[in-house]
Amino acid sequence: MTYCLAITLDDGLVFASDSRTNAGADQVSMYSKMHTFELEKERVFVLLTAGNLATSQAVLSRIKRDIEDEAEESLHSVRGLSDAAAYLGRINREEREKHDETLTKAGFSADASFILGGQIGRQTPEIYLVYPQGNFITTSSHTRFLQIGESKYGKPILDRIIARETPLGDAARCALVSIDSTMRSNVTVGPPIEMIVYERDALTFEHYLCLDADDEYLMDLKRAWDDNIRHAFQDLPRFDWEASRRSRHRGSQLTTTGKPGKKPGKKS
Amino acid sequence: MTYCLAITLDDGLVFASDSRTNAGADQVSMYSKMHTFELEKERVFVLLTAGNLATSQAVLSRIKRDIEDEAEESLHSVRGLSDAAAYLGRINREEREKHDETLTKAGFSADASFILGGQIGRQTPEIYLVYPQGNFITTSSHTRFLQIGESKYGKPILDRIIARETPLGDAARCALVSIDSTMRSNVTVGPPIEMIVYERDALTFEHYLCLDADDEYLMDLKRAWDDNIRHAFQDLPRFDWEASRRSRHRGSQLTTTGKPGKKPGKKS
Repeated sequence: MTYCLAITLDDGLVFASDSRTNAGADQVSMYSKMHTFELEKERVFVLLTAGNLATSQAVLSRIKRDIEDEAEESLHSVRGLSDAAAYLGRINREEREKHDETLTKAGFSADASFILGGQIGRQTPEIYLVYPQGNFITTSSHTRFLQIGESKYGKPILDRIIARETPLGDAARCALVSIDSTMRSNVTVGPPIEMIVYERDALTFEHYLCLDADDEYLMDLKRAWDDNIRHAFQDLPRFDWEASRRSRHRGSQLTTTGKPGKKPGKKS
Repeated sequence: MTYCLAITLDDGLVFASDSRTNAGADQVSMYSKMHTFELEKERVFVLLTAGNLATSQAVLSRIKRDIEDEAEESLHSVRGLSDAAAYLGRINREEREKHDETLTKAGFSADASFILGGQIGRQTPEIYLVYPQGNFITTSSHTRFLQIGESKYGKPILDRIIARETPLGDAARCALVSIDSTMRSNVTVGPPIEMIVYERDALTFEHYLCLDADDEYLMDLKRAWDDNIRHAFQDLPRFDWEASRRSRHRGSQLTTTGKPGKKPGKKS
């Protein structure tokens, strides 16, 4: 499995990915799912991959070759990010179709999904999610992030924190927390975590992190998040019947039933 | 879709469920997914349902009829909770098999899953998850909760908070937060939220809640959780490069790259 996400903000873009691939529980490997393409000061792209590893690698090879060959259509030639997504969609569909029938018969899937983001010149930075069928979507003013792979465990924290004006550092931390929650709940998502924080108009990559499981910052962050969540949790309004828990422990009987009161008392 | 969960603790059991069912986006209804069976002071059961509504209802009818008919095997006759789970598994499989072939041909699924929990006499309270095929699992000393339906969005908070010694009130709040996170991320999970907090050895149900979307306590809880999560988040260790963000806003250039430092500074 895989978990990758990208976030688009007023200040720039954040990309993050795990590094675990598996074909069954006994065939687990480490592969980077984050790839960058940079024509410094002209255009930058980050590509995140999920799904069939052979398809992902084939797509990646074609992207590189098209750049080398100065092909008519390549990441170096496309006019805008949406053209880049359309180009990626086309080669993804083509690579998938080469093996789809054989793999489906064997009970496998040739599907791969991608997140492609970056900036071309002074255009607005954008991120796109490209599906196995080659179609693609981007973000909206309300939906500021895209995810591929095991996306559910890590979504609630993004839903709560991310808005277009969120500072890059906060968004990057939120991405780490999102991936950490996912790694906790699904063992097929694993470290190292790779992250790129791209500042709007930089047209180069300044902030790249690769955090191993024992990385000091990651461990600090996990510990702090775990502590803070517990405190956040302890601070929630109590149910009415909890006030009487003390007396229960002295042997008396709880008698309250039904809905909590309007102003639940704090825990004593 | 559906989201139901049950938690087993030293102090008792917590059950919670949403109430939305849907067959396509234009056929959304409200159905309780929580059912109780009580022989006061002798045995209590809570049944949570997910999956095909016809199968769930058929299973529920048979459970009720077996009790009415004083059948040889019923929730009133079974010796332990695991026997109750085996009984439920058998009728679930039987009801599913009646319609499985026809439904599968039509592109639907007759599958239903259940969580069954409760206490019989002075036996230890237990919870079981019963699969569509009739087999079942219970909890362990490390895995204190079971989920059916849309389980992923709400799992990380349970993973962080729930342990066997967690007080009932905390576990109940955690269940609400877990369902709230799920409702936020999946519109096919919806209110009212039903909850039962069962105190070990009570052998009756004292705490039942049914919280509508506009319930005052639920709104207080959601607001408090949202605020607390934001604070928990603001309090996390910063990346090294964030210290220089202020100067960037005064026009200077960020130059830091790579991994965060050992002791990230707090945000200024």
